[in-house]
Amino acid sequence: MNAEILTVGTELLLGQIVDTNAAFIAERLAEAGIDVYFKTTVGDNPARIEAAVRQALGRAQVVLCTGGLGPTEDDLTRDVVAKVTGRPLRLNPTVLAQIQARFARRGIPMARNNERQAQVPEGAEVLENPRGTAPGLLLRMDPDRIVVLLPGVPAEMRPMLTEIVLPRLREVYGLKGRIRSRVLRTTGVSESKVDELLGDLWAERNPTIALLARSGEIHVRLTAKAEKEAELGHLLDGREAQVREQLGDIVFGRDEESLEVIVGRLLLARRLTLAVAESCTGGLVGHRITNVPGSSAYFDRGVVVYSNQAKTALLGVPAELIAAKGAVSAEVAAAMAEKMREGARVDLALAVTGIAGPTGGTPEKPVGLTYIALAHAGGVAAHEFRFFTDRDLNKQRAAQTALDLVRRHLLGLPSVPIL
Amino acid sequence: MNAEILTVGTELLLGQIVDTNAAFIAERLAEAGIDVYFKTTVGDNPARIEAAVRQALGRAQVVLCTGGLGPTEDDLTRDVVAKVTGRPLRLNPTVLAQIQARFARRGIPMARNNERQAQVPEGAEVLENPRGTAPGLLLRMDPDRIVVLLPGVPAEMRPMLTEIVLPRLREVYGLKGRIRSRVLRTTGVSESKVDELLGDLWAERNPTIALLARSGEIHVRLTAKAEKEAELGHLLDGREAQVREQLGDIVFGRDEESLEVIVGRLLLARRLTLAVAESCTGGLVGHRITNVPGSSAYFDRGVVVYSNQAKTALLGVPAELIAAKGAVSAEVAAAMAEKMREGARVDLALAVTGIAGPTGGTPEKPVGLTYIALAHAGGVAAHEFRFFTDRDLNKQRAAQTALDLVRRHLLGLPSVPIL
Repeated sequence: MNAEILTVGTELLLGQIVDTNAAFIAERLAEAGIDVYFKTTVGDNPARIEAAVRQALGRAQVVLCTGGLGPTEDDLTRDVVAKVTGRPLRLNPTVLAQIQARFARRGIPMARNNERQAQVPEGAEVLENPRGTAPGLLLRMDPDRIVVLLPGVPAEMRPMLTEIVLPRLREVYGLKGRIRSRVLRTTGVSESKVDELLGDLWAERNPTIALLARSGEIHVRLTAKAEKEAELGHLLDGREAQVREQLGDIVFGRDEESLEVIVGRLLLARRLTLAVAESCTGGLVGHRITNVPGSSAYFDRGVVVYSNQAKTALLGVPAELIAAKGAVSAEVAAAMAEKMREGARVDLALAVTGIAGPTGGTPEKPVGLTYIALAHAGGVAAHEFRFFTDRDLNKQRAAQTALDLVRRHLLGLPSVPIL
Repeated sequence: MNAEILTVGTELLLGQIVDTNAAFIAERLAEAGIDVYFKTTVGDNPARIEAAVRQALGRAQVVLCTGGLGPTEDDLTRDVVAKVTGRPLRLNPTVLAQIQARFARRGIPMARNNERQAQVPEGAEVLENPRGTAPGLLLRMDPDRIVVLLPGVPAEMRPMLTEIVLPRLREVYGLKGRIRSRVLRTTGVSESKVDELLGDLWAERNPTIALLARSGEIHVRLTAKAEKEAELGHLLDGREAQVREQLGDIVFGRDEESLEVIVGRLLLARRLTLAVAESCTGGLVGHRITNVPGSSAYFDRGVVVYSNQAKTALLGVPAELIAAKGAVSAEVAAAMAEKMREGARVDLALAVTGIAGPTGGTPEKPVGLTYIALAHAGGVAAHEFRFFTDRDLNKQRAAQTALDLVRRHLLGLPSVPIL
């Protein structure tokens, strides 16, 4: 049993809005245990809407359409579905009265064409839309197929889907099965490496595994199916343990736990404080750290030392050291971290210095070369990295790697992944 | 002549990511005057990808696929397209060498499965992807059809589409009719206010106007249609002048010109320097300023003074002042800015102090209350703002408003929009 999602609207084909409806519906269907194999978008063209609806009915039991329920001539979904399903449109007096009342309540005259929105295919169920004018429609078709028409406006569609349509689908199809996903977040290695490390786990079914590369992290999504809610958690726990066994310490968190949230939690638990001295990242590390509510408990200051003079003036890094080794060097990174730690009187200090690009690189010190140092009670260690040629990517990856260095230090792990 | 967009990836059918690629491609194609009739999304399933590709080839001259070019077993687009088009995959040594070099540059071992990404259908053109591992592929098919495979990662796909694919399509199909859009970016007022200010301009055709709310800005998109390239610019210039007349100084830039780019340009032109003292924004302002290549010409330092002690230790803001007025006050913001300006010996200094939330608010000083001060040769002025209840939104809006304050100062405009 599977569903197809059909989003109608020329604005979608012009790329002027992003199709968030399709993603929302797909995710809700997945949670209900309903597989989606195809999503299609068509414009406000009757022939093409018809072709898409017919095709969908040919290969799916549930067809969910959004869009094209407005009052204008371009709003064709009702007409097309009536034609394809052989259920002629009839003016529904109750719906018409509701539309009239809605306009009256707002003190706005109802336009003639709003009457189109009271047209209902014979035998269709009207789905209430308290946030908009057009009701949704649900058609039952023999032997076991359903066509659902919902408004295109997300704020109207979403509650109708979750409050009316999904419960109806569960009821009609006797769906007991549930799907739940859990995402394990990793950082520090490439997607292909994670793929490789997962080895035999790829062949496992329920829960299945999928990889997603996102913002410098590799996310491992586990998806479990079960009849009972309680079983889902149990299945996911089992697979999570296996994945962590294979991937080791590159796994830093789950679902919404960003690296800064994890680092914050570790600092708090250990009652440790952190300060940052940033050059190429320009403030991004401090920004991420302070994204976490309550971060003032472990973070109270940072400096952005974007020039050589600033490194000396704000931190006390000797000008001679910078002249001798260059601002982008392990020695200067280490000095920045140590000086920050001493001056701020904190337990840990992070320093980042690198060549963000796109200019500024040389053969010896190319764009992307970055040094990140961490100073702590036991000393200071600077690490060299070679990131990218793109300025934004370099800043992002530097900040991410810096935060991971702190995490690894606090957990007693090797500074960088050893795999 | 029309195109079909095919986005591949199970994560799209599970609704876990929103399909921004389809919207981006559709918009670029529309600008090139290429109609899109269908967009389809399928999962990482060979049979269904094949069905979708075959269908697309049956009804469109240009088929643009994104996704499924990664190194894993789930990455099937190359294989399917090779099968459907009858062009067997061959290991391309040049591409393989490029992939190897990419990994070598970063000091990361290449995994075995990355070799899959060097497989190229016979006769296909390889499209360079400097931001990622997988190259794109372009297959010419008789008599006049093109299949394009692009990576699913937006940051990789977008430049490849605009820099390589679209020019190729124009060339192959002799496309002359043009659509071009230009976005005027505004900041500081709401969407409904901008709507209102545009007044009669809404009724104008060619160029048309559309509003888009994005990241705390309101974007006014002008879209012109013409046969000749030169005419497009002319039409847009005319409408731009009218829009600027209606909107005034809330318009700060065009297209890709972020506020930090504009501020940087103004500072550079006037040979002025800027430093920042940030509390609630945590480094976000410095991060944005340093996103601009060449920003070291006007920016060399910032401090993140996240606690009262740090404000005193790093800036010299008197502890008594903070005790008397509170860290979140006009007086402390002004003191932060003045001290930063003196200490850094710069022309301008920005200071931001506020209650980001979600906790920390009181009836007198609620979450979202923020003071932003700008110190310059003529003195210092602090401004009060009341933003939101959401931490992320408060930080974003504070940083944006701070940068706009600098822009307005440099242009001799009122500190805040007067409308």
